[in-house]
Amino acid sequence: MMDLDSLDKLHEECGILGLWSKEPLAVGELLVLGLQALQHRGQEAAGVVVSNGRDLLLEKDLGLVAQVFAPGRMRRLELEGAHLGIAHTRYSTTGSNLRFNAQPLTARSSKGILAIAHNGNFINALPIRQRLLEGGAVFQTTGDTEVMINLIARYAHLELIDAVDQAMRELQGGFSVVLTNRETVLALRDGGGVRPLVIGTLPQGGFVFASEPVAFPLLGASFLRDVRPGELVWIEGDELRSRQVLSVKPTPCAFEWIYFARADAKINGLEAHQARVHLGEELAREGAIEADLVVPVPDSGIGAAIGYARASGIPFDYGLYKNPYAGRSFIQPTQAMRDLKVKLKLAPTSVVRGKRVVLVDDSIVRGTTSRHIVQLLQEAGATEVHMRISSPPIRFPCYYGIDTAARKELIAATHDNEAVRVYTRADTLVFLSEGGVRHATQQSVCLACFNGQYPAGVPQGELEKLSLERS
Amino acid sequence: MMDLDSLDKLHEECGILGLWSKEPLAVGELLVLGLQALQHRGQEAAGVVVSNGRDLLLEKDLGLVAQVFAPGRMRRLELEGAHLGIAHTRYSTTGSNLRFNAQPLTARSSKGILAIAHNGNFINALPIRQRLLEGGAVFQTTGDTEVMINLIARYAHLELIDAVDQAMRELQGGFSVVLTNRETVLALRDGGGVRPLVIGTLPQGGFVFASEPVAFPLLGASFLRDVRPGELVWIEGDELRSRQVLSVKPTPCAFEWIYFARADAKINGLEAHQARVHLGEELAREGAIEADLVVPVPDSGIGAAIGYARASGIPFDYGLYKNPYAGRSFIQPTQAMRDLKVKLKLAPTSVVRGKRVVLVDDSIVRGTTSRHIVQLLQEAGATEVHMRISSPPIRFPCYYGIDTAARKELIAATHDNEAVRVYTRADTLVFLSEGGVRHATQQSVCLACFNGQYPAGVPQGELEKLSLERS
Amino acid sequence: MMDLDSLDKLHEECGILGLWSKEPLAVGELLVLGLQALQHRGQEAAGVVVSNGRDLLLEKDLGLVAQVFAPGRMRRLELEGAHLGIAHTRYSTTGSNLRFNAQPLTARSSKGILAIAHNGNFINALPIRQRLLEGGAVFQTTGDTEVMINLIARYAHLELIDAVDQAMRELQGGFSVVLTNRETVLALRDGGGVRPLVIGTLPQGGFVFASEPVAFPLLGASFLRDVRPGELVWIEGDELRSRQVLSVKPTPCAFEWIYFARADAKINGLEAHQARVHLGEELAREGAIEADLVVPVPDSGIGAAIGYARASGIPFDYGLYKNPYAGRSFIQPTQAMRDLKVKLKLAPTSVVRGKRVVLVDDSIVRGTTSRHIVQLLQEAGATEVHMRISSPPIRFPCYYGIDTAARKELIAATHDNEAVRVYTRADTLVFLSEGGVRHATQQSVCLACFNGQYPAGVPQGELEKLSLERS
Amino acid sequence: MMDLDSLDKLHEECGILGLWSKEPLAVGELLVLGLQALQHRGQEAAGVVVSNGRDLLLEKDLGLVAQVFAPGRMRRLELEGAHLGIAHTRYSTTGSNLRFNAQPLTARSSKGILAIAHNGNFINALPIRQRLLEGGAVFQTTGDTEVMINLIARYAHLELIDAVDQAMRELQGGFSVVLTNRETVLALRDGGGVRPLVIGTLPQGGFVFASEPVAFPLLGASFLRDVRPGELVWIEGDELRSRQVLSVKPTPCAFEWIYFARADAKINGLEAHQARVHLGEELAREGAIEADLVVPVPDSGIGAAIGYARASGIPFDYGLYKNPYAGRSFIQPTQAMRDLKVKLKLAPTSVVRGKRVVLVDDSIVRGTTSRHIVQLLQEAGATEVHMRISSPPIRFPCYYGIDTAARKELIAATHDNEAVRVYTRADTLVFLSEGGVRHATQQSVCLACFNGQYPAGVPQGELEKLSLERS
Repeated sequence: MMDLDSLDKLHEECGILGLWSKEPLAVGELLVLGLQALQHRGQEAAGVVVSNGRDLLLEKDLGLVAQVFAPGRMRRLELEGAHLGIAHTRYSTTGSNLRFNAQPLTARSSKGILAIAHNGNFINALPIRQRLLEGGAVFQTTGDTEVMINLIARYAHLELIDAVDQAMRELQGGFSVVLTNRETVLALRDGGGVRPLVIGTLPQGGFVFASEPVAFPLLGASFLRDVRPGELVWIEGDELRSRQVLSVKPTPCAFEWIYFARADAKINGLEAHQARVHLGEELAREGAIEADLVVPVPDSGIGAAIGYARASGIPFDYGLYKNPYAGRSFIQPTQAMRDLKVKLKLAPTSVVRGKRVVLVDDSIVRGTTSRHIVQLLQEAGATEVHMRISSPPIRFPCYYGIDTAARKELIAATHDNEAVRVYTRADTLVFLSEGGVRHATQQSVCLACFNGQYPAGVPQGELEKLSLERS
Repeated sequence: MMDLDSLDKLHEECGILGLWSKEPLAVGELLVLGLQALQHRGQEAAGVVVSNGRDLLLEKDLGLVAQVFAPGRMRRLELEGAHLGIAHTRYSTTGSNLRFNAQPLTARSSKGILAIAHNGNFINALPIRQRLLEGGAVFQTTGDTEVMINLIARYAHLELIDAVDQAMRELQGGFSVVLTNRETVLALRDGGGVRPLVIGTLPQGGFVFASEPVAFPLLGASFLRDVRPGELVWIEGDELRSRQVLSVKPTPCAFEWIYFARADAKINGLEAHQARVHLGEELAREGAIEADLVVPVPDSGIGAAIGYARASGIPFDYGLYKNPYAGRSFIQPTQAMRDLKVKLKLAPTSVVRGKRVVLVDDSIVRGTTSRHIVQLLQEAGATEVHMRISSPPIRFPCYYGIDTAARKELIAATHDNEAVRVYTRADTLVFLSEGGVRHATQQSVCLACFNGQYPAGVPQGELEKLSLERS
Repeated sequence: MMDLDSLDKLHEECGILGLWSKEPLAVGELLVLGLQALQHRGQEAAGVVVSNGRDLLLEKDLGLVAQVFAPGRMRRLELEGAHLGIAHTRYSTTGSNLRFNAQPLTARSSKGILAIAHNGNFINALPIRQRLLEGGAVFQTTGDTEVMINLIARYAHLELIDAVDQAMRELQGGFSVVLTNRETVLALRDGGGVRPLVIGTLPQGGFVFASEPVAFPLLGASFLRDVRPGELVWIEGDELRSRQVLSVKPTPCAFEWIYFARADAKINGLEAHQARVHLGEELAREGAIEADLVVPVPDSGIGAAIGYARASGIPFDYGLYKNPYAGRSFIQPTQAMRDLKVKLKLAPTSVVRGKRVVLVDDSIVRGTTSRHIVQLLQEAGATEVHMRISSPPIRFPCYYGIDTAARKELIAATHDNEAVRVYTRADTLVFLSEGGVRHATQQSVCLACFNGQYPAGVPQGELEKLSLERS
Repeated sequence: MMDLDSLDKLHEECGILGLWSKEPLAVGELLVLGLQALQHRGQEAAGVVVSNGRDLLLEKDLGLVAQVFAPGRMRRLELEGAHLGIAHTRYSTTGSNLRFNAQPLTARSSKGILAIAHNGNFINALPIRQRLLEGGAVFQTTGDTEVMINLIARYAHLELIDAVDQAMRELQGGFSVVLTNRETVLALRDGGGVRPLVIGTLPQGGFVFASEPVAFPLLGASFLRDVRPGELVWIEGDELRSRQVLSVKPTPCAFEWIYFARADAKINGLEAHQARVHLGEELAREGAIEADLVVPVPDSGIGAAIGYARASGIPFDYGLYKNPYAGRSFIQPTQAMRDLKVKLKLAPTSVVRGKRVVLVDDSIVRGTTSRHIVQLLQEAGATEVHMRISSPPIRFPCYYGIDTAARKELIAATHDNEAVRVYTRADTLVFLSEGGVRHATQQSVCLACFNGQYPAGVPQGELEKLSLERS
């Protein structure tokens, strides 16, 4: 199966959701609705846990939210008196027994059943896991999320909140987590706040935690605030409680604004669409060119293209049609058909004929899709194609929850800008600068995948590799 | 299951495809690829027939093309020496045994096996069917397509081309048809050319027929020309043959340009996206207003919004985000959740806050979605919402292949424009005039659903009902 | 998929069922229950039609009854006010589009919707079909059942009963049929009564027709009588009406008693288990041998083995275990594993060790399974294996509804009895004589598959082939 | 879904299988074949682990072996160089997330990946689990099998064999276990040998462990010997190694011979079919009666009926037909249809009419089925029905791997024999005595479910309950 939506893009690894309501309600249905709004953060698996304080139901499987939670499956989430739950949508790399890697994860500990859903990565999971194994622990998965559950279980003598607090202090990296023990729901974020996590309130009393606030309207919830970097929040006696566990040094991921977050998602006070328009405006300044039309690569380049058109005065037009049904195709294309992938998804409209086109996209990963799109426009009669990218060249791996391709597959890691331009066959090519990103977002963003500077550290052994690569 | 993509829109009933190649090739795979490009013309069933001149394979079922033709099913279309086939994608109303109504239809007649795929409607199918039943015929379906096969079978003494010619003369309405008898592929169109049908050529020798040329790039085919209204074409000895069976009086369906056809589809020499930009420009003239932003309802209003912005000078912006994953949801929303349908699919971005917004859409059917969208924008802080529709009010049923809702559900059939505006809660509302449509398309279009003037007649008994309703 | 239950057996092609109740009841549920009792007559497809006199629902698909009518599907058979229906279970040969060949078949004719279910074969279907095709008819299937519907539709000017009467007179072969037009249910049988069909009464008023009376207890019905050869029965005003359409010359199929019918089925006054015990008693007389144990091939040889043991005085024992879970296995055995098929299904018990065994089975088709079973017993320590078959050697094809293997695959068609014995590796081999079958059943049975004498004729062209083969 | 095969029977909880081959072979395919021979030991879930010493694949799910391992799934068990594996088939009580309880279980420990499959019960699992939880362990399931893995993992400093040896010493109850760490396969049995486990040899070098030897022919294996009670065996350097970990006091489960084991299974030197014939012979002595026919309840009563007939001289006949397709039915019978369950599965044949019938079955659990069967025979004309049961009345729960119904549902736990007879409506009723079982089996069998004497102890807290109940 060839997944056309993820054609040559970086992948967010997860979206998470937690809900605690004062009164019983259709928790399963609401969490599934909310997950659908977070579907862009992970399309390979989905899972939901609901509880009424006594029973806990878990349903998870590979597939899109709407596939996993088909009508028959929804019935399995019905639970008398349910008032809380957590949910997860996941992008994951392939492997065997993937179903068992889907989240939420659950475990029966001395503290009762714990269920956890996680977005991001613990960079020191491996040494902690090794220590636990030597103490006689067993693991079901190879993932880092299970390490957190085992860490918490080790603090058997502490209250749950204190055990989670301890675990937060031991773990490093970029992570947002929701957790439940059937009584309360906890939410927490690493000290840099690399991955987003926001809080909403329910009108009937209660709270929602979500990777992005775009899930709130579907739950009837109102945006309250972001979970702060390093903060642990939970529900106690109908109230939201908070503890600042880790010291704060904000380094939110720039890519959330550049590409991952939904256009209408406001994170750290800045809406993604607004940010993208600003990025496009910066790009118009840094990459000015004389041209007739600004054309976005739909849908990811739309915001920046609008910004570019606005700042440059060059007309915006819809020069590339995106087939909404081309998301997944079961055809196994033969080698000769390989470039059909792009043709199934994108088609030029006639407005580009005889025109000098500014083609705006958010990023370049492998460069193959860019190359195909430039060709589509040229075949459709564009006289010049000027590629403008609203982010810097991606050169380094992300250790905080983004699936950057293998480094050797990142075209910008191995080619300079002119070589990338030649490969894409564009007439000119300009990437936005790091300064441009900072200026457009007005945030102290993490730019590690662009510049290799990792604010939350790197896993043991990786540092040496990186320095070799950088030299 | 609640289908969010078809929320409050008119539905094209079908897309059709035919292929004849000089040399054997992966006919099944190519037809499925081509069908995916025609998916917007029908999302409820898909079917493919392939043949090598001797054997004929048929696979069809309910579902999207990619669902019906999952990998296991694709294998069932593999046929040694296959070099021709036809295909169909269908929108259909609900009912029992829907699977049996999916197309292509096949029948074993004295002329061997015939397979047929059809877009449109025969308005005199019922009296012909009655006549055939009295002669001892039996039918499998209640559809009009089977009537055509039976008509052809009745001319047992004629050559196939002549039998089809005779059937064309007896049938009335708006229809495009592809047909195969395992040897040749035929394509034909009613005298008004109401529904589109185009011809492409294969590089290795051979021809493709398709509802829209957008299928051609996926088949490696080049656009040749439109099938002419009233024309019957077929393949004979590697050549394309043509016979002008019916006299021509072009009345192509205006809605193909307004909404149905894919943005990049060129029909009768006019590309849909271009037409939509022109419709938007006309609309800017007819519905001028002082405002800050032009916002399209994605994706159907994008072309007209660009035209409106261009002609009016008001900035275009992306004020509504469309969730690409919200196509289908298995949640059965309770009454209280009913308006979640729109929230699952659309979300306002922050650009509308404090702005006077021109909201551009292609049409209004029931008005419920428009009402929800206006409310979304108002809740997001738009100070004024001026609704602009790039087509006239829909007041009459279509008998030529469009599933207009029941007449009483068409808000414009029972309310005047001011009442519609009040219902949608927009500050102002302007529909494009019929003249505006003609001017933008520069075609002698059928506008029957707007003005009740039916160029290809109406079914027996319907005329009287209509005149009553019009009075 | 390797079907172990049908390992080397002849196959009945169908079981049929009809129900008409005075009062509304759960028709779909009852027909599915009844079909499960007829499952042994066909395991490849199942279908049910229910009607309330106005609406008609049809559900059919490939698979066992319990697979086709899984819970979700059962709901589709719920129909307010339903009081009649027909049903079918089918064995069929492989081919494309098998689903469309499943029965009941339905057709819309000038007499309204007709639904038909059929067990047996019309030997003159081909010439009648040819005649209808030339008159402009079209067919959906290549089967003979559709010919009957078209024949009936041709008599548009007659009442339904008279039209069916006419069709019965034109059709030849061995056939039992149930039919409904949403008002009444009809049942009919060829003049020889080759295939069984019985009538039951419902306690609340109404009638049931079934291939075997074993379906009655599940419907709460009581056995009334067999439909007579050549008889047409139907319901009119709550009453069972009858017309003797064809002259009677009873030639019931001997194989129904030998193997097909369920052990507890009473057909033409004789229960299958009783008949099998008698066949075994005859076999003990014709094939007497000195031995220690009588062992049946389970389950088909049990009745005859009991008869053999009783008549011979040799102890009966359970020397072969049959794995009830081995019905279907998805393992695709490699050549080396080929003989696992028998081992999956059958295993010797230790009682055969050191014993002279009389192995009793109902028939030999290809001989491969017999060969494997003899070997199993020998490996388990049986000192002698005397094979006794409770029917004559199968040498000729059946044209009346049994799927005899291709003639060249029938071991007895190409080998004499000694050659068959050598192939099976049995120490001795005795088949029951034709006289023995007649004596045991006390019926004027059709023995065509044993002796090539066809009481209801053979299809055009087959006679010549047979005489060649017989010479 | 109503499972007709398990109608009113005790349920074995599991069948297990392990394989180690000197050379690579199709391990997955062989284990699935072998599981099908153990299907009678558990029909609700199936699982297989295969390994090549490096990689480990696990596939398990709810359903019959042939359902879980459909063709697509079989491919997922293909592993280059695979030479070992374990497998499990399970009966389990209902609950949520059953899929996660299916076995084999796997865990990643400091000793690498362990996979385990288990038949039986650890009666002291609960206190051990509690101890582990307090030490910070987490569990995925509520089952006792996971406790064994965690126990082994706790002995991180020991060799695997020694760690397993230690775990065996700590665990009490009746259990047979197979285990792999990707290098070797281990098999072990409790000191009483309550649950069976046998060893076979592979012709090409290697060993198989199985609950019953009936799996061996399908694997090409030859029976070597039983694993001894209290013995731990494993493979080391192509050799079978053994260690007698626990002292031996044989108390094999009597029910294996009475009902659970396959007829052709030889356990502790005694074949189940032979044992059943002996039980029937004992029963004929203890429960002599004047009658005309001995009729088994198929299939479980066949062996004992043959023994009864042989010892009594009363003719054996097949008075009850069992529908092989009635295993599972999706019909949800209404209350009125409730007794259809038995009618779907069993039907009387005409041989019982006018006869005094000895009806032989292996056991009575709730009595409901017996009551229905007696009624079927009476309605079919049996003049007397004398029920004979080849085991004593079941009065006590099993703690060693048998799912005895809740005690209050065991009719013999709450009714004396005469009351049971009255309930079943039989004319006379005789259960075999405990002495009869011992005499027939010639083994020091566990009879705890009959007499409440538990040779391997009972779980904490249960003893007190039992003594109350016994008083």
